[in-house]
Amino acid sequence: MVKSLEDIEVKLNHVGKADPEDLLNSDGIIIGSPTHCGVMSWKLKKFFDENVSTAWGKVEGKIAAAFSSSGGLGGGNEMAVMSMVNLLLNYGYLVFGLPEYAAPGVTAHYGAVAVGEPDENEIKACEMLGKKTAEYVKKMNS
Amino acid sequence: MVKSLEDIEVKLNHVGKADPEDLLNSDGIIIGSPTHCGVMSWKLKKFFDENVSTAWGKVEGKIAAAFSSSGGLGGGNEMAVMSMVNLLLNYGYLVFGLPEYAAPGVTAHYGAVAVGEPDENEIKACEMLGKKTAEYVKKMNS
Amino acid sequence: MVKSLEDIEVKLNHVGKADPEDLLNSDGIIIGSPTHCGVMSWKLKKFFDENVSTAWGKVEGKIAAAFSSSGGLGGGNEMAVMSMVNLLLNYGYLVFGLPEYAAPGVTAHYGAVAVGEPDENEIKACEMLGKKTAEYVKKMNS
Amino acid sequence: MVKSLEDIEVKLNHVGKADPEDLLNSDGIIIGSPTHCGVMSWKLKKFFDENVSTAWGKVEGKIAAAFSSSGGLGGGNEMAVMSMVNLLLNYGYLVFGLPEYAAPGVTAHYGAVAVGEPDENEIKACEMLGKKTAEYVKKMNS
Repeated sequence: MVKSLEDIEVKLNHVGKADPEDLLNSDGIIIGSPTHCGVMSWKLKKFFDENVSTAWGKVEGKIAAAFSSSGGLGGGNEMAVMSMVNLLLNYGYLVFGLPEYAAPGVTAHYGAVAVGEPDENEIKACEMLGKKTAEYVKKMNS
Repeated sequence: MVKSLEDIEVKLNHVGKADPEDLLNSDGIIIGSPTHCGVMSWKLKKFFDENVSTAWGKVEGKIAAAFSSSGGLGGGNEMAVMSMVNLLLNYGYLVFGLPEYAAPGVTAHYGAVAVGEPDENEIKACEMLGKKTAEYVKKMNS
Repeated sequence: MVKSLEDIEVKLNHVGKADPEDLLNSDGIIIGSPTHCGVMSWKLKKFFDENVSTAWGKVEGKIAAAFSSSGGLGGGNEMAVMSMVNLLLNYGYLVFGLPEYAAPGVTAHYGAVAVGEPDENEIKACEMLGKKTAEYVKKMNS
Repeated sequence: MVKSLEDIEVKLNHVGKADPEDLLNSDGIIIGSPTHCGVMSWKLKKFFDENVSTAWGKVEGKIAAAFSSSGGLGGGNEMAVMSMVNLLLNYGYLVFGLPEYAAPGVTAHYGAVAVGEPDENEIKACEMLGKKTAEYVKKMNS
């Protein structure tokens, strides 16, 4: 599902298995969570709460973005994305969204979102977010 | 478009013509705005900024909710709704959303939202928000 | 620390020990958390994530508010409070803040906040939030 | 009040007089507003609403941050800063805050904030935000 981008090594992690050192070793990060009560899942929050001493502030100036899926339109997917944006800003990351549209009626201004299982256009928005992350990472490290 | 509810008088206002006294004279309020850059429109903000001396704090404990429409999924309709929720909390309103779904995949957890022109289900979510506002207004004034 | 209010029974709970049924049995709730990365702590989030089947939506129309303390001004105490407001709206609660000031320069427009250990004025803001919760609970149940 | 930074030309603008072209001609931007009802002032919102055709999306990848002052602690200065962060993300900017503290108990995790007239430490936080903006602008344009 995660493909290599030219000159960029991509690593996929699940929050239960992720190595906190990966935060320090990555020039960019995209985090995602289901929309649980309009906020990232407690499991994702736990990971970042518990790695404050390892990585908080030390990732300053690195690139970050977020994505989420909710059960319904108006069900909090943007809110959950913004809870992650909030956390990422707090950690010191440079955070972004996409002005671009993946298709008419589908965008990712604060990060990528989906209602239920992501359809073709919602997946395209995720891919655009990944490419833009790679682009910013290259620019910040050139 | 706005229908009378049993025992509830409903008044529809446009922000350019609204009388600030209406804020004081209403037991409940639903405000809406297009999603402009993820925040309520400057025109709606201007109305509330300019009526701070008339109504801010004086509406404490009244019922309020919000709605918005954006050009795309992930385009900020929840964010715009939350900018209104933020303002309404600041004014002193009791604010709510709906756990209920209008249809599979359509809800209004923070207020009603639509992508583009509201479809049948998004309109149903707006109606549910209106009915719930009436219900809370009655309960608070019984 | 929690005192009885006239006609109102108050129960103090810690998140590790709280009985989910208390959400159903309470007419109002005030939740608090330290500010961890600008979002409520994962422990509080876990409690609400895990009690979705018990209480989500079933508490609709009950009264709720939030409070938080951060290490610094600008360090996320309002953001953490809003992460709880977000969750409470999602659950179906009627949520509020205070227009009133506890002292010059200290208020609780979105819920009560403190920088570090709460001082006298910040504690007064908490007490005001508690009294207002009691007032709204009485009004909704009269 | 705004001083030149090494190799960086700094331009101070008031929202009523600002030239929209400045958005296009600047590699970085810091926007500020009083906290009015927890959201940026309608005047600042008007500027960005009216310059969507000039600059929205065209500033993608440029650096941005925000600051605000409120009448009270808990009065919405973080919320107002986040309303600007929201807008800046929507426009396509890379947005950041500071993990660093300006003094014990004073930081700018989402942008710089003040309660009332900024004191020495709150001004220091603003200066740190300016310096970091300059640093990121240089890095993105090297």
